[in-house]
Amino acid sequence: MIADKMKPLVENNSAIRTMFEEGKRMAALYGTENVYDFSLGNPNVPAPEAVNRAIVQVIEEEESTFVHGYMSNAGYEDVRQAVAESLNARFGTRFGLQNIIMTVGAASGMNIILKTILNPGDQVLTFAPYFLEYGAYVRNYDGELVIVEPDTETFQPDLARFRELLGPKVRAVIMNSPNNPTGVIYSEETIRKIGEILKEKSREYGHAILLISDEPYRELAYDGAAVPYVTKYYENAVVCYSYSKSLSLPGERIGYVVIPDEVEDSAQVIAAAVIANRVIGCVNAPSLMQRVIKRCLNEQVNLEAYDRNRHLLYQSLTDYGFSCVKPEGAFYLFVKTPMEEKAFCELCKKHHVLVVPGSSFVCPGYVRISYCVSYEQIERSLPAFRRIAEECGLEGGEKA
Amino acid sequence: MIADKMKPLVENNSAIRTMFEEGKRMAALYGTENVYDFSLGNPNVPAPEAVNRAIVQVIEEEESTFVHGYMSNAGYEDVRQAVAESLNARFGTRFGLQNIIMTVGAASGMNIILKTILNPGDQVLTFAPYFLEYGAYVRNYDGELVIVEPDTETFQPDLARFRELLGPKVRAVIMNSPNNPTGVIYSEETIRKIGEILKEKSREYGHAILLISDEPYRELAYDGAAVPYVTKYYENAVVCYSYSKSLSLPGERIGYVVIPDEVEDSAQVIAAAVIANRVIGCVNAPSLMQRVIKRCLNEQVNLEAYDRNRHLLYQSLTDYGFSCVKPEGAFYLFVKTPMEEKAFCELCKKHHVLVVPGSSFVCPGYVRISYCVSYEQIERSLPAFRRIAEECGLEGGEKA
Repeated sequence: MIADKMKPLVENNSAIRTMFEEGKRMAALYGTENVYDFSLGNPNVPAPEAVNRAIVQVIEEEESTFVHGYMSNAGYEDVRQAVAESLNARFGTRFGLQNIIMTVGAASGMNIILKTILNPGDQVLTFAPYFLEYGAYVRNYDGELVIVEPDTETFQPDLARFRELLGPKVRAVIMNSPNNPTGVIYSEETIRKIGEILKEKSREYGHAILLISDEPYRELAYDGAAVPYVTKYYENAVVCYSYSKSLSLPGERIGYVVIPDEVEDSAQVIAAAVIANRVIGCVNAPSLMQRVIKRCLNEQVNLEAYDRNRHLLYQSLTDYGFSCVKPEGAFYLFVKTPMEEKAFCELCKKHHVLVVPGSSFVCPGYVRISYCVSYEQIERSLPAFRRIAEECGLEGGEKA
Repeated sequence: MIADKMKPLVENNSAIRTMFEEGKRMAALYGTENVYDFSLGNPNVPAPEAVNRAIVQVIEEEESTFVHGYMSNAGYEDVRQAVAESLNARFGTRFGLQNIIMTVGAASGMNIILKTILNPGDQVLTFAPYFLEYGAYVRNYDGELVIVEPDTETFQPDLARFRELLGPKVRAVIMNSPNNPTGVIYSEETIRKIGEILKEKSREYGHAILLISDEPYRELAYDGAAVPYVTKYYENAVVCYSYSKSLSLPGERIGYVVIPDEVEDSAQVIAAAVIANRVIGCVNAPSLMQRVIKRCLNEQVNLEAYDRNRHLLYQSLTDYGFSCVKPEGAFYLFVKTPMEEKAFCELCKKHHVLVVPGSSFVCPGYVRISYCVSYEQIERSLPAFRRIAEECGLEGGEKA
């Protein structure tokens, strides 16, 4: 009964489900307290109180048929205007409401953009390690995702290789910073060079190449690290944003797309993206949440909780002898496996530690450890991590 | 910059926007009070008070990370269980939570189903008049929408023609009852025969043909009219439901898909549909609204308001000499135009009455009049409708 294109997705999904079921099985067997699940990206820090207050206020203060009704497929005009002004104030951009389309999260934002621009056979480049769903999004529109291999020294994009792979069939490039799974923030230097290479290649091939910046982790940057705003470095750049992490609202599916006026054929691209929002079935971003966002543009989750987790986990794991790039953003550690990846994941499991193999991000030899969990879970898990280090024969494993 | 597939959508959209702009222009020129806009399907009856109460209760009573967090891509298990039980109680079905997938409205439900089953070149049948977006949904997956011409006597599907058009390339059939734009409810006899024809043709061609029932108007049925539940008449039937109209929540994008166990390869179809929900970018139905739905399964908008509108408008227009099938459901009248459709729409506009041409539903010679407007708007508009009837030389136009 199911379509040919869906078959590999169903098969692949079984693997993920197996891992998930294994976690549940272990929790039942050993008790939830004794299983250390670092596999999920579901924020454990609650939404700011202001969000729940705003929900109640919207219900009390705004008219019901307005709050729950249809609006333009692009979203409420006042909400889009407020988002544009907020971005302008923060980043010195000059967006108007016409540049903002409210979306059902960043995932739907990316689908809308890809549907808007991709013809069958077009290539889309991205930098490994990357969120595996990008492949499915690109294939939705019969495009081909081409992977720039990781630079495992810095986990900044390998720009020489980027330039090599950037052939005439490439219509778009997807970047994600702060990065899932490494936690690395692409530097201003990186972004500037990506822009320069794209300009050069656009000229060479005679068509614009769109830079799509997937930014659900933008606000999760530690030690005051700056996350450069890509539209300032390259004119054919769009941003797919989500409040999933910045306001801990992943289930609510609320975000937006920014399409600046500087994008080639911007009026047509914006019109097509709004239509894509409708015809892929989203129609519009959830209305109540749009109204809430307008009241919460200056709110943010408690970043200190994640930062505390980051310090404890990074410090402990490196003390035990593990090596990983210190994450500047997001809520992941990407740790080099001291043995073959699959065997390492099995060893972790033996110690009741669940992590995601780097292969799931097209970067084998690593594991992703999500620290969007309670501080107590990290504390409880440390002896297990130490034993894992010892069994791997890591230096520092004993002294720690 | 935009994809070839998007170009006709952008062009076509300009026509709709032109109509919309015309409405705004007229309102500015003559005053909102003096322009009678019957063109939109945006419910004017507010959501039941219980919905807003439930929103506040969920916020107060349930844990924030749970309410706003990720859940299974299919939706919260308790919500799906509650929806299944509610359907079972109402329709004598035997659904379990595995048969329910919560979706971003019915539009996304349909996209999920079509993505799940369509291979490029597959045909999908539907009955005119129909909601024009179906064509875009089918083309999203490179399918071809084939139209069964309308039976303008009854606006029940023309089953003889249905059988003729139901060739071996047809993978699915979309039906919509109560119907947009006619307000007709497909009779039990119609549904039974559709099921029989589908069974016969499935056997003949050696593959299952999926019946997709698009049901946003299910609860909007007047005079206690029954809307048969399709899964009881044909095993390979799925339902795409939305709370947009039944709870007046069109902006919230909340609905569900029912995939019964009786559907061929149901486990695989369900698994694929859940994955489709994820990869088309919805990820999951908005979480807070899922929690709210669980508390509002027995709620419904004030149907009497629509019914009052229906009576006044139907009675008045037929008194003036217009002819249309009396709607049993939804909130539309589908009126035969006494002159060429385009000229009639222009005549209406001259009298400040905005309606949608039947051609927009692939049924020229008619107009759709939405009565999800205030009773006062209908009252105010009646003299205009009478003058339109007079100018068309309709019998009854003068006596009324």
